[in-house]
Amino acid sequence: MKAVIFGGGDIENYEKVKKYLSCCSIVICADSGARHAFNMGVVPDLLVGDMDSISPADMEKVQKWGVKKQNFPSEKDFTDTELAVCEALKLGADEALLLGGLGNRPDHSLANIFLMVSFKQQGLELKLADGNWEMFLIDEPVEIEGKEGDILSLVPITPKVTGVTTEGLYYPLKGETLLMGPARGISNVFLTSAAKVEIEQGLLLAVKCTEDEI
Amino acid sequence: MKAVIFGGGDIENYEKVKKYLSCCSIVICADSGARHAFNMGVVPDLLVGDMDSISPADMEKVQKWGVKKQNFPSEKDFTDTELAVCEALKLGADEALLLGGLGNRPDHSLANIFLMVSFKQQGLELKLADGNWEMFLIDEPVEIEGKEGDILSLVPITPKVTGVTTEGLYYPLKGETLLMGPARGISNVFLTSAAKVEIEQGLLLAVKCTEDEI
Repeated sequence: MKAVIFGGGDIENYEKVKKYLSCCSIVICADSGARHAFNMGVVPDLLVGDMDSISPADMEKVQKWGVKKQNFPSEKDFTDTELAVCEALKLGADEALLLGGLGNRPDHSLANIFLMVSFKQQGLELKLADGNWEMFLIDEPVEIEGKEGDILSLVPITPKVTGVTTEGLYYPLKGETLLMGPARGISNVFLTSAAKVEIEQGLLLAVKCTEDEI
Repeated sequence: MKAVIFGGGDIENYEKVKKYLSCCSIVICADSGARHAFNMGVVPDLLVGDMDSISPADMEKVQKWGVKKQNFPSEKDFTDTELAVCEALKLGADEALLLGGLGNRPDHSLANIFLMVSFKQQGLELKLADGNWEMFLIDEPVEIEGKEGDILSLVPITPKVTGVTTEGLYYPLKGETLLMGPARGISNVFLTSAAKVEIEQGLLLAVKCTEDEI
């Protein structure tokens, strides 16, 4: 089951992220992330958080539409977005897409990115996206859809990632080791409509950027 | 010796980052990062990159002021920012601050963040900053200056970070283990003008956000 989570960060272009809503079973908002749902004309299934950042106007809409709420205290060990993804997992989601996961607080952006690691271990595939990019983890062979000219960047988030092999990319990797730190895996380019990546050991963070954003 | 690097990402408020320029010995721009230097009235010492993103107007200024240039081919294993930090290291810098390191390309933002790991191993302490936040690595006991109410977020970038102990923060950690993934270390709060953090093993990415940004 697929969930869409709206975080409190930025969404650059609502039109471009509409596609993610068509095939999801549940929409959960993390606190002020509710603004994105309402801006897109979506009534969320659930609002989660300490409610310290949602606007009064959005809270009125939450009441008006009878959106279910789960309040948490502000002094807690989890971010609102983390709690929202947790709820998706409890409700049976095995895939979740976070929109509005990156914004002007770089610590929250990083925390949201690393949530992918946390939830992968719990059996939920979390991705982040905005209109022109998608971000996901790679720890097993994967085929990635794209189009010629799209960018695929591979960022090691373990000290090293061994046996990285790619197909369908302009700069091919052939069983190579990528280290955390050097930017070697940044800005590879799709040659066709699909790319394959496999690794032996480690964890890669992949970012696919569509051409018109570059 | 301290260097300031201007990357091609965003700088929110030039006034607020002026302070970083007062105590640096060398200013290096990565390609379109040159716009930030000129916008701040600074003539950089060196321009580095494949020059695919610097504007013609800024390139004119580079010529006019006789800024030294190092051109690299666009097909390379390094990002322009990485090359700029490399040059700082070659010129003798042991500290560098990257302004304009984060922007609308999340892959480049992540690559720039992980450059801190790469250059730490080479003996250069790289930090990233903007007007309201600073980002740096912690692998040994450190005292961090701030003010009451400032936010300090601790993000593990190794699978686990053991023995995390803090002083001067609202949510104290006492020899605890932080795991990569859960957002537990996010949004701690300075109680006074200094905080101490020490760890036993692993690597923490720290983000300090000043109060007026929150």
